Amino acid sequence: MTSHVTADLQDRFALAQKMAMEAGAVALAHFNARERLVIETKADPHDVVSIADREVEDLIRTRIAAAFPGDAILGEEYGVSTGTSDYTWVIDPIDGTSPFVNGMPTWCISIAALRTEEIAIGVIYVPCNDELYAAADGMGATLNGKSLKLDASRTIRNAVTGIGANNHVAPATVASIIEKLLDAGGNFIRNGSGALMLAYVAAGRLVGYYEPYMHAWDCMAGYCLVKEAGGWHLPFPVKGDGLTKGSPVLAAAGGAVDDLRTIAGL
Amino acid sequence: MTSHVTADLQDRFALAQKMAMEAGAVALAHFNARERLVIETKADPHDVVSIADREVEDLIRTRIAAAFPGDAILGEEYGVSTGTSDYTWVIDPIDGTSPFVNGMPTWCISIAALRTEEIAIGVIYVPCNDELYAAADGMGATLNGKSLKLDASRTIRNAVTGIGANNHVAPATVASIIEKLLDAGGNFIRNGSGALMLAYVAAGRLVGYYEPYMHAWDCMAGYCLVKEAGGWHLPFPVKGDGLTKGSPVLAAAGGAVDDLRTIAGL
Repeated sequence: MTSHVTADLQDRFALAQKMAMEAGAVALAHFNARERLVIETKADPHDVVSIADREVEDLIRTRIAAAFPGDAILGEEYGVSTGTSDYTWVIDPIDGTSPFVNGMPTWCISIAALRTEEIAIGVIYVPCNDELYAAADGMGATLNGKSLKLDASRTIRNAVTGIGANNHVAPATVASIIEKLLDAGGNFIRNGSGALMLAYVAAGRLVGYYEPYMHAWDCMAGYCLVKEAGGWHLPFPVKGDGLTKGSPVLAAAGGAVDDLRTIAGL
Repeated sequence: MTSHVTADLQDRFALAQKMAMEAGAVALAHFNARERLVIETKADPHDVVSIADREVEDLIRTRIAAAFPGDAILGEEYGVSTGTSDYTWVIDPIDGTSPFVNGMPTWCISIAALRTEEIAIGVIYVPCNDELYAAADGMGATLNGKSLKLDASRTIRNAVTGIGANNHVAPATVASIIEKLLDAGGNFIRNGSGALMLAYVAAGRLVGYYEPYMHAWDCMAGYCLVKEAGGWHLPFPVKGDGLTKGSPVLAAAGGAVDDLRTIAGL
């Protein structure tokens, strides 16, 4: 433990893990009921995930406000609230809405906290596989309590890289990234949740993750996990309005950093 | 039920489901122990999956030989054995070896059977999510016992398409497929298991799946599932040595067939 580890951080880290699992149970109930809800309410499947998204963010905001009323909160659904403490929570209630709405298990709850301008907490919970990824500044990273340490021998050539794509990125750009990665001897997956793929980097399941444009709520928790597991990530601009604007996201184990930065041109 | 549904088919369909779950439990034990096995045996992670692959295929071959000694068997690990009945089993003991070896949950057991030259049985089991996909000719498709029926309103534009890639396909070709799909307003995932993505098509989680080159053991079970759920698939050449050679694989819900055939040039 380093001097970064303070009681106020530890208390928030415990809350983050507890909230992630509680929120995950709420989201999972919506996920398992989504076909019935679509039929009963004649809603679009996207409406069902929107309702789940808001309910989960409400729950997390309520828990934070009760325990740490001075903390600021930035959530995907409701935007930013200002605070009086050093902490800003950064929340994606359901990351991977496309897998969620289509019935695939690769979605997660992503909860991060900044202390001043440093990422201090990153927690990701995957309800369909009951996996809790948790990290805090100076306290290491764990998956269901098991310590995560990245393997220096892994590269893009002997491991798998995660690639993200969304409407902010031109099709030709996505295609070019994949072609460069494959040409360099790599291999890729895209499972529909950037936060989950970043957690997979921390767990050594992927050797790196690159997406040309993500928001803070998509990547902050994953970045904390990767750093605490011994990996590297691109700095995310948190000053000014950086926290609410998108940015390129790249995180990797040491042996993949140079190759992925070359592919990304970063 | 149609006249295709005979007692000999029903008996084999029951065996296929039982075997898939038994084989899945064996594979899952290897998966959960893989890090320990790599350390204890100083083996490469790929050796661990190879051992699991062979053990699972051995188990399935033993069960088939005991119940239906006249049936032929084609498996990824041990090739083809000849038989005296109308049935040929087509087995991929672990589809998605890359997810398996890297610790991701998206791998499965894939068991199919041909009756003469028609795909008659398709069963896919996903141990990490305890999902059993099962279909037989004229008997429909189910996921954990729930009937699967594809939604005619789904297209590449309002749903997600699965894309496969492997060493047999040039990087520029993979990139071009993805660019065309995104340009057409689509979205993609690649989870590392072609068989599982085909099962996802049958379950309506993906609207289609395209991979320029797959083997019979990767796609037969998925093809049966998609057909029985009401979808379409490209014919797979099963005559002569077609069953042991690769072929393009394309399967989709009705509303995505034309778009995906255009993208694939098939």
